[in-house]
Amino acid sequence: MELFDNINPIDFRYYGRNTSAFEKLNKYLSEKAFISYQLKVELALVKVLSEKGICDKSVYTETKKAIDKVSAEEVYKEEDRIHHNIRALVNCIRKNISDKAKPFIHFTATSYDIVENANSLRYKDVAENVVIPDLLELEKTLIELAVREKNTLQIGRTHGQHAEPITFGFTISGYVSRLGNRIKSIKASTDNLRGKFSGAVGCYNASGLFFKDPEEFEKAVLKELDLKPCLQSSQIAEPEHITDFIHSIISGYSVLANIADDMRNLQRSEINEVAEIFGKKQVGSSTMPHKRNPINFENVKSMYKEFMPRIITRYLDQISDHQRDLTNSASSRFIPEIIAAFVLSVNRLNKIMSKLVVDKDSLNKNFEKNKNMIAAEPAYILLAAHGHPDAHEYIREKTLESGKTGTKLNELLSSDSSVKKYLEKFTKEQIKILENPGNYTGIAAKKTEKVCDYWKKELNL
Amino acid sequence: MELFDNINPIDFRYYGRNTSAFEKLNKYLSEKAFISYQLKVELALVKVLSEKGICDKSVYTETKKAIDKVSAEEVYKEEDRIHHNIRALVNCIRKNISDKAKPFIHFTATSYDIVENANSLRYKDVAENVVIPDLLELEKTLIELAVREKNTLQIGRTHGQHAEPITFGFTISGYVSRLGNRIKSIKASTDNLRGKFSGAVGCYNASGLFFKDPEEFEKAVLKELDLKPCLQSSQIAEPEHITDFIHSIISGYSVLANIADDMRNLQRSEINEVAEIFGKKQVGSSTMPHKRNPINFENVKSMYKEFMPRIITRYLDQISDHQRDLTNSASSRFIPEIIAAFVLSVNRLNKIMSKLVVDKDSLNKNFEKNKNMIAAEPAYILLAAHGHPDAHEYIREKTLESGKTGTKLNELLSSDSSVKKYLEKFTKEQIKILENPGNYTGIAAKKTEKVCDYWKKELNL
Amino acid sequence: MELFDNINPIDFRYYGRNTSAFEKLNKYLSEKAFISYQLKVELALVKVLSEKGICDKSVYTETKKAIDKVSAEEVYKEEDRIHHNIRALVNCIRKNISDKAKPFIHFTATSYDIVENANSLRYKDVAENVVIPDLLELEKTLIELAVREKNTLQIGRTHGQHAEPITFGFTISGYVSRLGNRIKSIKASTDNLRGKFSGAVGCYNASGLFFKDPEEFEKAVLKELDLKPCLQSSQIAEPEHITDFIHSIISGYSVLANIADDMRNLQRSEINEVAEIFGKKQVGSSTMPHKRNPINFENVKSMYKEFMPRIITRYLDQISDHQRDLTNSASSRFIPEIIAAFVLSVNRLNKIMSKLVVDKDSLNKNFEKNKNMIAAEPAYILLAAHGHPDAHEYIREKTLESGKTGTKLNELLSSDSSVKKYLEKFTKEQIKILENPGNYTGIAAKKTEKVCDYWKKELNL
Amino acid sequence: MELFDNINPIDFRYYGRNTSAFEKLNKYLSEKAFISYQLKVELALVKVLSEKGICDKSVYTETKKAIDKVSAEEVYKEEDRIHHNIRALVNCIRKNISDKAKPFIHFTATSYDIVENANSLRYKDVAENVVIPDLLELEKTLIELAVREKNTLQIGRTHGQHAEPITFGFTISGYVSRLGNRIKSIKASTDNLRGKFSGAVGCYNASGLFFKDPEEFEKAVLKELDLKPCLQSSQIAEPEHITDFIHSIISGYSVLANIADDMRNLQRSEINEVAEIFGKKQVGSSTMPHKRNPINFENVKSMYKEFMPRIITRYLDQISDHQRDLTNSASSRFIPEIIAAFVLSVNRLNKIMSKLVVDKDSLNKNFEKNKNMIAAEPAYILLAAHGHPDAHEYIREKTLESGKTGTKLNELLSSDSSVKKYLEKFTKEQIKILENPGNYTGIAAKKTEKVCDYWKKELNL
Repeated sequence: MELFDNINPIDFRYYGRNTSAFEKLNKYLSEKAFISYQLKVELALVKVLSEKGICDKSVYTETKKAIDKVSAEEVYKEEDRIHHNIRALVNCIRKNISDKAKPFIHFTATSYDIVENANSLRYKDVAENVVIPDLLELEKTLIELAVREKNTLQIGRTHGQHAEPITFGFTISGYVSRLGNRIKSIKASTDNLRGKFSGAVGCYNASGLFFKDPEEFEKAVLKELDLKPCLQSSQIAEPEHITDFIHSIISGYSVLANIADDMRNLQRSEINEVAEIFGKKQVGSSTMPHKRNPINFENVKSMYKEFMPRIITRYLDQISDHQRDLTNSASSRFIPEIIAAFVLSVNRLNKIMSKLVVDKDSLNKNFEKNKNMIAAEPAYILLAAHGHPDAHEYIREKTLESGKTGTKLNELLSSDSSVKKYLEKFTKEQIKILENPGNYTGIAAKKTEKVCDYWKKELNL
Repeated sequence: MELFDNINPIDFRYYGRNTSAFEKLNKYLSEKAFISYQLKVELALVKVLSEKGICDKSVYTETKKAIDKVSAEEVYKEEDRIHHNIRALVNCIRKNISDKAKPFIHFTATSYDIVENANSLRYKDVAENVVIPDLLELEKTLIELAVREKNTLQIGRTHGQHAEPITFGFTISGYVSRLGNRIKSIKASTDNLRGKFSGAVGCYNASGLFFKDPEEFEKAVLKELDLKPCLQSSQIAEPEHITDFIHSIISGYSVLANIADDMRNLQRSEINEVAEIFGKKQVGSSTMPHKRNPINFENVKSMYKEFMPRIITRYLDQISDHQRDLTNSASSRFIPEIIAAFVLSVNRLNKIMSKLVVDKDSLNKNFEKNKNMIAAEPAYILLAAHGHPDAHEYIREKTLESGKTGTKLNELLSSDSSVKKYLEKFTKEQIKILENPGNYTGIAAKKTEKVCDYWKKELNL
Repeated sequence: MELFDNINPIDFRYYGRNTSAFEKLNKYLSEKAFISYQLKVELALVKVLSEKGICDKSVYTETKKAIDKVSAEEVYKEEDRIHHNIRALVNCIRKNISDKAKPFIHFTATSYDIVENANSLRYKDVAENVVIPDLLELEKTLIELAVREKNTLQIGRTHGQHAEPITFGFTISGYVSRLGNRIKSIKASTDNLRGKFSGAVGCYNASGLFFKDPEEFEKAVLKELDLKPCLQSSQIAEPEHITDFIHSIISGYSVLANIADDMRNLQRSEINEVAEIFGKKQVGSSTMPHKRNPINFENVKSMYKEFMPRIITRYLDQISDHQRDLTNSASSRFIPEIIAAFVLSVNRLNKIMSKLVVDKDSLNKNFEKNKNMIAAEPAYILLAAHGHPDAHEYIREKTLESGKTGTKLNELLSSDSSVKKYLEKFTKEQIKILENPGNYTGIAAKKTEKVCDYWKKELNL
Repeated sequence: MELFDNINPIDFRYYGRNTSAFEKLNKYLSEKAFISYQLKVELALVKVLSEKGICDKSVYTETKKAIDKVSAEEVYKEEDRIHHNIRALVNCIRKNISDKAKPFIHFTATSYDIVENANSLRYKDVAENVVIPDLLELEKTLIELAVREKNTLQIGRTHGQHAEPITFGFTISGYVSRLGNRIKSIKASTDNLRGKFSGAVGCYNASGLFFKDPEEFEKAVLKELDLKPCLQSSQIAEPEHITDFIHSIISGYSVLANIADDMRNLQRSEINEVAEIFGKKQVGSSTMPHKRNPINFENVKSMYKEFMPRIITRYLDQISDHQRDLTNSASSRFIPEIIAAFVLSVNRLNKIMSKLVVDKDSLNKNFEKNKNMIAAEPAYILLAAHGHPDAHEYIREKTLESGKTGTKLNELLSSDSSVKKYLEKFTKEQIKILENPGNYTGIAAKKTEKVCDYWKKELNL
């Protein structure tokens, strides 16, 4: 099958043709990788069996050599013949070892003693080696941007309406904090990925035939794989550790989607505060050559919409009849795709955010637009604090008047004798803010730094 | 990239290695197919332009030859260079034609004038040539099974509890009817797949430069593709026709899932009324060689759990900012996978259901288990009909007594003088049913036939 | 329990305190209404029984009087005692009738013969009397707005970027068409709501004891309720008709959400093309008295986010073990809430859209912003049509130059001798468009009218 | 509005009429409770203001008295007038205090400084006082059941097929462990519920007018409420803490759903290993008086299907434009319902599981059914361990033979000279297991105890 015979866009488009993504992800998330992880688990078993004296050391040496010869193609061919994927894997190993060694391949194991551990291990590896490092890169990019722009005045927006002033760095620091938080969450759920080696129904029925303490045997096998066992398992591991892992990724994906939405809104023709960098040869539109579309931000949002709902499958897969049914088997084969999509979006976002064009002219122009009205909040609060009994309503009406007449709110207040006695109590600093609402940014810059410092330390950046 | 470098299990496992599925689906759902459909749309445009005298007939002839030379690989390579997929496609065509012809490729079109039509067309083609015919095969299989087993006594189950008698054929006729209904729904949503050729924002701005009635031009282009235009469109077609199409598939998938669940429950060790046929060389379990697992039914359910939640993406994709944003672009590339998964499950289910083992001994044994209690319903109803003022409560207590003492309900009634006067009014037929509840199947057989006949006619089977 | 003891915001806030919504919806969607619909079904049964001579006419007369006395409170109290809701309902009716009549209440029926019909009927009633009429009101509002503003120039936006000119009426006509389409879809799914009266497992086991053709009996009962039976049923009706009904509502909700998103984006401080009308006493923000937030549009989107995912429950409820399990019982009790929420959003949107403030100054100002660049598309297309071999690339570069230098694209072209030979071929009209891109609206106005006329006719407005 | 005028079944049925649930949940989850928590937050603010010397101590005393007089009804009435819920609340407080005190109500706060804290606090309170204690009750019930039945032989089931023996206590211990794990997860997400008091856009713009270190002021206010602030906030708190909280509940709900599914399957007529206790007056079915349906287990599953998909809303609500849009406002009002539904299901499950009927006769009868075949796994493994080169295939064929001929697997082996040399090496204990597979339960009992002990300690039960 050729690349473009594929149906899934991750395969033929986003990962399959993306050299850097392919190299990063192939060794964990491809089917080839899955089979090679399964072989690792089978080998770990033989190793422990030989150490425990159940079989000869040579069985381990033989197996170690044998598994290098097993290819995904071969395993699939054998599966075609016998219709059982793990038994096929076992047969492929056994083909390459002596009769004496044969019985110890897959000894006392059930298929999911292999599958669960192979999956937990590769998810752990890809999280530790790719997902988290790439998220840290994005976090670093955001921190740099936030710190650089910590004093860049921006009008804060609520409901899409101009609200109170902030700085652009402060805006970014919000993502720094939320993403930092999700990185911690992904780390925690990764650390909690578990294994199992308790046999067909979880009672160690088979291993109990040979070991006095089969839980100790389980621990030993999993230790080879750097995994800890579930406290309890049936044919399958407790599914919750996987649900938590995917939840941490999807809730992180929501943060990416929020960044993407905000940026493409700030890139609107009328707002224009930021822009994706645009290649010289890049075509904006097939018919409108002048367009500079936020296509990368749009792609991140679009991938999010595709992958977010898949959490539903994870919850449904927590439910398995009795000691398990197999209705989580095909569905769990789609988990690697979620991880791949997330990594692709993290990388894409990092690339755009690290070169984000910040247009200070537009930031200023937008701020100026409602500058006058912005004084409303401090005016109302200061009036109230200095004793005005109904400051909120008073200012609400004055802003309506200001809106109608065009007279600045500031001037309306100065010329209204009814509030004179309160205005006299204002400090110079307070008056400055009324006169120049650009100063009304609270602790935006300081907070930006604080948040960035916190996450730099917390995440060892 | 090799097959097992893929991440998505449809690609590397369920479709990619399944010759029959591959042959069926590749020409509609692969990326290669998508590009070839896009070329068809570009050609249709040129054809109409030449017919309308906007360009020379030779432009059409040139283009017709040119598009045969364009490969997916080439288009992707060009996209790498200019970062725009449809402009890349256009460039690849233009490379192979004369300067004179060049301007008429993609003339007045926006990218989505190509993409929307290519998608609607391939979805229509795959639905008409694969999805619906394969569903009809499954429907035929179910009808045969239903008719064959229309008189096979089965205990009806509600809440997993034995309720009233039915026949196994009647059970199957329930799926016949629901699936038939979904086939109609898929047909209707397929027929309603629409196209558009209204330019970048839907006002025919560009085509309006050359045509007095650009809607007539749109219709002409779409007629070449056997598509009808949306009544209104923006840069994109009205998204609802796609949502409806996917809804019809997913609600059909729910019916498959219901069949799969029922069958795997009827295959439980304790129930054993049906079984998947089992290959001679097939391995039931890697450690429990005696197992005969309903793995195909489990696979259908598992795939359903993976694909059902993706309707959420379709609803989200109905929302697009103003004349459209691009956040439906990546996500809509995953639609073909839903169709592929559905077809795979339909085929799998057809294969198992056509060879389903129906175990009449078990059906009878299960029926016998609560045969005595089954008389409760007709007993209560007949008592009531013949004048007993509180028949339901009376029978409820008698069944409790029957359960405790083991005496048959029938005998408890005969020996209770308080109900004698009612029992005397019973007809012979009514008494027969109390004595042999196996006769209490209502119109199960007749209804089975009626339902099957209805759908055979309705679907021209 | 007091109103504010409730937990659900529909109950205590959006419907419970909204007199007009309450009056509209209470009689179909409240629990009180549900019970009264169940009583209607029980009465229809008795009516047919008396007509068929199974019981005396007086039984019907008695029952008709009796059901008026049954209250929801009473039924619930009886359910507390016997733990079965429909048997409780039956007991409450029986309490008020003679011993002779008692047996014929619920005669041969299973609970879901009552529940399914009561639900189908009230959903049908609420759809026909509220959902569809209210949607038609909204459609009328949108049509009026579209027609009124059919010539109001607006810059079309794709990717949030200025694209090609349209008119504001044309924008609205897009919603007219999509909503019209959804109204048709809701009508169709409403017409297809089905009933059943086939007993505990669907074989007419009980009714078959008394009727030669129990399907005819079923039809007669349902005819009393103006419902048609499912072709096949088990204990429950085929669930697909409900899934289709809810799908039609939710996909309609997505259209509302799209309108809401677009409007709140157009209301952004920087864009300002539309605004929600704002009450004189209304408070925009608790601390920022100048804010005019699009809170109604935000509410519609928010409700959509709450209710859209509930389609998942409907798909899951399509699956029921064998002749049914009860796991669709509690969940289906939440369906009325989806309908209520949708109606509330339709009404809210109608209210705002009917008073929508359209700010023509802002529309013009926004259009002017990139007016110069807008000529790019017609320029490139006309150049191409008149023989320029690489018009798209040529114009792409010229727009970059125009962006950098500030010189109008138009002027750049006039002063470039390399394109002179093409420009000379332009018609006067074509040149007009290059000079004043405000003319480049294609058939916006005409299409707006056409779409509105179509839906006025199609929906009998 | 009367109870049965409500539309939502939580309100009119599951909580509204359930005295114990009502008493538990009303004070946290009703709208009344929400408003009273908002008042608490407003009071905490005034308290800190008075402590910091911004206002007089008497303002606090006045306010403390005033808030007791504010009712939900009153706040709603005021909201009707001014269309802003928090400003309405503020007005209601202000009505009851002196002019001097008035300005300090809501001083420097934005609405969401009140709303976010009120919600975090009531969610925390309900989690700590109801959700977690009730879960612990259920956990205790499960532990008691597991320990009591730790030696009760049960056939383990995979794919619905008889697999290897376990004990019923071991089955239950699987739920003990998974639920224990979810309780920990809910505890952790509860502890992480956060507050904010950073003003309209998160920069402390208003509070910064009066406090040198407004973050310290924020901390002080939140300390009054026993909450910690988010590291960063905009108008709203970082939404992830809520998503995590709901995820922990929903993934816990999946465990309940798994228990419910397993139990209702074990209650099937053919399996009959467990049963819900059944009231004396309880009606099993309106037409089938003998039915004993697992209606409570079915209810738990049904509620799960209704509430599980609502996680989608939480992910969507993580996305808010810029410093926030209001599209999370209506939707977040539905969160209390998720908590209520979960508690109701926990209580229901606890009630049934604490009185679960365990039928040892059926357990034994089911075990006996395939007892002979069960020896297959130990037989194959022991043969392999003792040197048989192809034990799995050998046993697979013997079980097929045993199935066909009815001869016990054990006897087939003894009479087959080809395996004699391996069988001679078996220990007495190993032979015992082949002869009586009821001994082949591994460490089921020991593991059950271990798991239960672990969670008793871990959760301080």
